[in-house]
Amino acid sequence: MVSTEKIFSEFKEHSVAEFFKKNKQMLGFSGKIRSLTTIVHEYVTNSLDACEEARILPDIKVEIFSSSDKEGVYKVRVEDNGPGIPKQHLGKALGMMLAGTKFHRYAQQRGQQGIGASGCTMYAQLTTGKPILAVSRYDKKKITCNISIDFKTNRPNMENMVEEDLSEEAHGLVIEGEFGECKYDKSSYGVFEYIKRTALANPHANILFVGPDGQSVTFPRSSEEIPPKPKEVLPHPLGLSTYDIIDYAHRDTQSTRISSFLQSRFSRVSSSKVKELEAIAKGVDFKKKPTELEWAEAEELVNAIKSVKWIAPATDSLIPIGKAQIEKSLKNILNPQFLVVSERSPKIYRGGVPFLVEIALAYGGDAGRQSGDIREGDIIRYANRAPLVFDSAGCAITKAVKEIDWRRYGIRDFDQEPLTVFINLVSVHVPYTGAGKQAIAEEEEIVSEIKNAVMETARQLQKYLHGLIRESEKSGRKKAIMRYVSQLALDLAELSGEASANELEKRMIKLIEEKFSSLTIEEDSEEYDDEPVKEEEAKEEDL
Amino acid sequence: MVSTEKIFSEFKEHSVAEFFKKNKQMLGFSGKIRSLTTIVHEYVTNSLDACEEARILPDIKVEIFSSSDKEGVYKVRVEDNGPGIPKQHLGKALGMMLAGTKFHRYAQQRGQQGIGASGCTMYAQLTTGKPILAVSRYDKKKITCNISIDFKTNRPNMENMVEEDLSEEAHGLVIEGEFGECKYDKSSYGVFEYIKRTALANPHANILFVGPDGQSVTFPRSSEEIPPKPKEVLPHPLGLSTYDIIDYAHRDTQSTRISSFLQSRFSRVSSSKVKELEAIAKGVDFKKKPTELEWAEAEELVNAIKSVKWIAPATDSLIPIGKAQIEKSLKNILNPQFLVVSERSPKIYRGGVPFLVEIALAYGGDAGRQSGDIREGDIIRYANRAPLVFDSAGCAITKAVKEIDWRRYGIRDFDQEPLTVFINLVSVHVPYTGAGKQAIAEEEEIVSEIKNAVMETARQLQKYLHGLIRESEKSGRKKAIMRYVSQLALDLAELSGEASANELEKRMIKLIEEKFSSLTIEEDSEEYDDEPVKEEEAKEEDL
Repeated sequence: MVSTEKIFSEFKEHSVAEFFKKNKQMLGFSGKIRSLTTIVHEYVTNSLDACEEARILPDIKVEIFSSSDKEGVYKVRVEDNGPGIPKQHLGKALGMMLAGTKFHRYAQQRGQQGIGASGCTMYAQLTTGKPILAVSRYDKKKITCNISIDFKTNRPNMENMVEEDLSEEAHGLVIEGEFGECKYDKSSYGVFEYIKRTALANPHANILFVGPDGQSVTFPRSSEEIPPKPKEVLPHPLGLSTYDIIDYAHRDTQSTRISSFLQSRFSRVSSSKVKELEAIAKGVDFKKKPTELEWAEAEELVNAIKSVKWIAPATDSLIPIGKAQIEKSLKNILNPQFLVVSERSPKIYRGGVPFLVEIALAYGGDAGRQSGDIREGDIIRYANRAPLVFDSAGCAITKAVKEIDWRRYGIRDFDQEPLTVFINLVSVHVPYTGAGKQAIAEEEEIVSEIKNAVMETARQLQKYLHGLIRESEKSGRKKAIMRYVSQLALDLAELSGEASANELEKRMIKLIEEKFSSLTIEEDSEEYDDEPVKEEEAKEEDL
Repeated sequence: MVSTEKIFSEFKEHSVAEFFKKNKQMLGFSGKIRSLTTIVHEYVTNSLDACEEARILPDIKVEIFSSSDKEGVYKVRVEDNGPGIPKQHLGKALGMMLAGTKFHRYAQQRGQQGIGASGCTMYAQLTTGKPILAVSRYDKKKITCNISIDFKTNRPNMENMVEEDLSEEAHGLVIEGEFGECKYDKSSYGVFEYIKRTALANPHANILFVGPDGQSVTFPRSSEEIPPKPKEVLPHPLGLSTYDIIDYAHRDTQSTRISSFLQSRFSRVSSSKVKELEAIAKGVDFKKKPTELEWAEAEELVNAIKSVKWIAPATDSLIPIGKAQIEKSLKNILNPQFLVVSERSPKIYRGGVPFLVEIALAYGGDAGRQSGDIREGDIIRYANRAPLVFDSAGCAITKAVKEIDWRRYGIRDFDQEPLTVFINLVSVHVPYTGAGKQAIAEEEEIVSEIKNAVMETARQLQKYLHGLIRESEKSGRKKAIMRYVSQLALDLAELSGEASANELEKRMIKLIEEKFSSLTIEEDSEEYDDEPVKEEEAKEEDL
């Protein structure tokens, strides 16, 4: 064994900024096209969240300019009419990792970790050496300043600060940065597609995009209604681990007893529920202070919670895109032959986290994705109305869609059909696989619900496709008959010696047309999927 | 617009420990089987790294005990004969995220981020409320103590510390923890398989595993040779970004000039190379202090570096498993009909990070993975000799293997053949997609090299399979002839009236046997893959 002193002389502590600087791929900065999309994604997401929070109809302008002399360098400018950021928080919001208003909240938001925008600042520094420029209008003040991150300490550097008074109430944020190692590309992974998909899921937003080629595209607001403000909800008891209960209890210095603590900190806990719990968890002193709760007691509480019946979590905290909007958007974009949209009832995962799946299936027209000569099946993924464009292979949505036995629904091969599956997962806490927020972890309940959703819509697609086949069979029979009509008309005319062949043929064609048009497309009664599909509906009082 | 004061009143900062507590799936803690495997993975990886560093032949004992009364709770105990950890670093090594000896190093190691073991401490706290127990023998001292993380501050709590003097030099580390939300499973994603795969790639380690069923399995050391100590290498100039050069320069207070800075901090930079650079980067003053280097100058340097020729990065920093060991292990485990192992020459990615691919292809026998009635193609992935068992779908290795057109190599469908592809990626910096270190990011050069490696071995498999087909055709012909021999012998005997039919038959059979055995299997000259495979070899002076 060699001396190990040297090994430990190198023992060091690192800041979270250093960690992500070294592992920038974890924030979505890998590949030039993806990096540029990540930047736009982080800024636009923040703008939408801020507007929603402040009850403002968002006007967002995204501009990308390419550097004339440097390859791979772009200036990105995002301007919104959101609330702006007050001076004392501006630096941390854009120049410090893990700082923000969203991290600790239990409410549906696009962003949730307080890393995104600071990650962009980092990327600007790493690739062009320049800080970003922020202009915040907030409370009759306009603050302009440069912001960068001190990686060693994860603290913001603010330079060139200019503070101006505004004569009238104004609000909004402009962020401008220069980024290298980027590439603008109009492919499905690029900025343009990203913004298009964002517009699709956020009809209340007006988004203007100006690309580096100078081309300007407006995605106009199609709804004047600001989506309901995402409610912060109290956690549902069924979603609590022993650690959670201990953690909440030890931080609760206001409640004087466990019993009142349970009622005030969690949803669906009534005084009669507490009595039920007391009857089961006999080892727990419900009169003691929550700060004195011990692990074994909390464990007993969790077991008691699991053994009584609960009303399902409130789901008004979940704000979907809405069936009408999805239908309108997909018709617009894909012009499909067949479209079905379904909004499913809310479910829960990990015992108590509410989520909801919106799904649409489009077939034919521009559905699917062009790949060489064929159109192959495509999956459009969203989480809390923010598009997910990368890491498709590692996402629970993709897994669920690919695990479906599509042949049962008349689709021979998902990868060879003009088919688009649209899925939006809505939740107060989306379990992303990474800090880059592009894929959803394979939580069992989520995968299972997505599968059920896909199967529900696939059954309708199957009926449509089966109808098509019958239609084509019918039209085949009609053609065959028509082929004989002319000859038949001639023969009849000769045999009868009366009517003209021409007249006879016309009358016969009319007869045939009537016959076939009266064969309306019947609802198909055959069931291709003979296995009944199991659905686990989360019913009240029966979780 | 509503008042936004409330929004910003909730602006908070968070520690990296809080971040990973909320996003534990990013550290590999999602799903019960995976969580238990992650724990064993982190501890065993650390033990192997520590022994390698200290030049010790590792003896590692992994024990898992299931809790008699609590479902999903396991005690995990890992003991090694490594160097131990000195008292002053013990707490941080096991109870603080982003602290350790590995993070800042540019050398091949299994672990690289200083999160793993502390992540396990976190998981113990979250699932059983208990700290871990560490026993470290180091420098004639034995330290026993409990360690937990203060999530709010990301600082270690150390309790019940006992310090004992040891009469003789002893070293080693024992970590013991109780973890909930776990499941022991003998599937391919479980602990047992993980340890088996670790043993396969680390023949110098002796690993004893005791499962919760009491079953004890030893994976004995098969090589007494400690792998060469992974060298810390100086970065290659071609891998440097402008930011890197600025960063290195501004921290270098020792070099007095840019010219000496370049020679001392990076590999392959000779004084004549500096002269070449000077001739090109005319805007850079090579005589100024590195701390005064400006962005524009560094940018010019990067461009100059790209325009001159370099000797490839030193690759003695890359320690492969070795062809002989892979061959031995795979024969042992898979008992395949056909096996080919190839060690490829080192390559570089991102311009300057050296890496190397080891690959094996096994066919038949127990190769592939049992799935229902068939054996389907299997991919065994390693990075720096540590097995990767999860997140297969999002991994560059999987992507590369699946993109191969296997039909060109006689494999009709990768998912329906008894085929195992074994790949070990070796690098001083493995670009993992997440902190859970289970998948490799899709760096272009890495994907391309893996593809080339697979194709190289697949061509040999193809020849083997083609030989099999010819063999079976031949044996078909032989059978057909044999069927007529008896009759022919009788007829000949009758016609000639001389020899006995019996004797004739025997002679004819001998003739046929001789004829067929002389048809030795020729090297197949037909080329199925008509497209020549492009290989980009990184040649010296021609990068």
